[in-house]
Amino acid sequence: MRKPLILITNDDGIYSTGIHFLQTAMSEIGETIVVAPDVEKSGVGHGITISDPIRLNNCVNHNGFSGYAINGTPADCIKIALKVILKRRPDIVISGINRGANMGLSILYSGTVSAAAESAMQGVPAIAISLDSWLTPDYTYSAKVAKKIVRTVLVKGMLPNTILNINVPKTPNGKAKGFRITRQGKSNFIDKFKKRMDPKGNSYYWMSGEFFSKKNNPKIDDGAVRSGYVSVTPLHFDLTKYSSISQLEKWEEFQNELE
Amino acid sequence: MRKPLILITNDDGIYSTGIHFLQTAMSEIGETIVVAPDVEKSGVGHGITISDPIRLNNCVNHNGFSGYAINGTPADCIKIALKVILKRRPDIVISGINRGANMGLSILYSGTVSAAAESAMQGVPAIAISLDSWLTPDYTYSAKVAKKIVRTVLVKGMLPNTILNINVPKTPNGKAKGFRITRQGKSNFIDKFKKRMDPKGNSYYWMSGEFFSKKNNPKIDDGAVRSGYVSVTPLHFDLTKYSSISQLEKWEEFQNELE
Repeated sequence: MRKPLILITNDDGIYSTGIHFLQTAMSEIGETIVVAPDVEKSGVGHGITISDPIRLNNCVNHNGFSGYAINGTPADCIKIALKVILKRRPDIVISGINRGANMGLSILYSGTVSAAAESAMQGVPAIAISLDSWLTPDYTYSAKVAKKIVRTVLVKGMLPNTILNINVPKTPNGKAKGFRITRQGKSNFIDKFKKRMDPKGNSYYWMSGEFFSKKNNPKIDDGAVRSGYVSVTPLHFDLTKYSSISQLEKWEEFQNELE
Repeated sequence: MRKPLILITNDDGIYSTGIHFLQTAMSEIGETIVVAPDVEKSGVGHGITISDPIRLNNCVNHNGFSGYAINGTPADCIKIALKVILKRRPDIVISGINRGANMGLSILYSGTVSAAAESAMQGVPAIAISLDSWLTPDYTYSAKVAKKIVRTVLVKGMLPNTILNINVPKTPNGKAKGFRITRQGKSNFIDKFKKRMDPKGNSYYWMSGEFFSKKNNPKIDDGAVRSGYVSVTPLHFDLTKYSSISQLEKWEEFQNELE
């Protein structure tokens, strides 16, 4: 039987530590191919590169890790991998391991999650995995989580039009208490802008933010992670707010054509 | 009574024609402020700028149009407008008028829609408006549609956690048949990559795509537009696929903690 083909990407860039851990873990399961941004692309959301040329660089490091570095976004990586690079369709896509969690409303900004979304939109089962640790992330346990979940999906098959958004907690013993199937919460970063002056006297701003968790409900992504569980959130890309359709249909302003 | 404050942005850039039409139309309704990308940012999705400085340029053209041009994304424009530029909270945000429709799965790539999403995530009612015309767009009718919908929302109030994604058809007489409240469809661009060589002999790729409409159901965004109606789709940002939660909870792999 042919080994499963596992396409790996991220948004921290091909030289980040998380993707190396992920590639090592995935190589125990199947044939791997890495197609990732050549530099960090955190916060690019589901952006794609349509106004600039995209370049593909074959990149091999001295530990034997090899892959394609793209001067584009994570969604670009999936698109060019599927259309140009790969000779056969991957069995699964996994994106990460991201440095920092992707939870709540902030997943809209996430290149990691968007790469998985792009894959699923093209019919390939996909997983995003992130570690809720920023300063000294240790990806050992997250890589084990990734292996378990990828193995499970390869056996069971993915639910249709669904991606799994996995967030791993940082805990004192490096392990989680278990898994929680969650929904996307409403927590988000609170924006801050720092104004500075450049040497020519022109002002500029740095955008930053602090993630604000609203409550510790373990049925919600950030609540589960704060409680020490691996959060598994099924996501899709139908953004329709169905409950608003019937209300809007009653608005008399929409009953007639425009004068 | 104070005039409503209307924040205007887009992803085609502050020098595009669509945003000028929109600003002119909105100035009949309230006080307007334009905060938009300094260059075209089509396809940036919900990207935000966190690894580069953001600059704010006050830009006034000879027709009296004025606004702030940002070297960032549409979502950045909303964030910096709300935190840095505006002295009071806007009553509504409108994003567009986009050159080209934003329908189906392709709304995930849309900076226009993402600016509206960012606004709603911050509690400000928001509308995205796009015209399904590329080569010689005439924004006259779309500007009337924008006025009608903004006036309606200012009177009725926006449905909670909802944005309206408006797509205006291009029709022979320049008018639509009326409005249709729709859901987001599953149509999308079919990706193409064109390989070229630069003068140094290095290869690069252009990504492009052709929008492929699956069917002409007028209850779906692209179906309504293809049938000559203005499509009004209520969207939200809870990406949870609720129907998958109970299924995943049954997976025995998620019952125990990881060995």
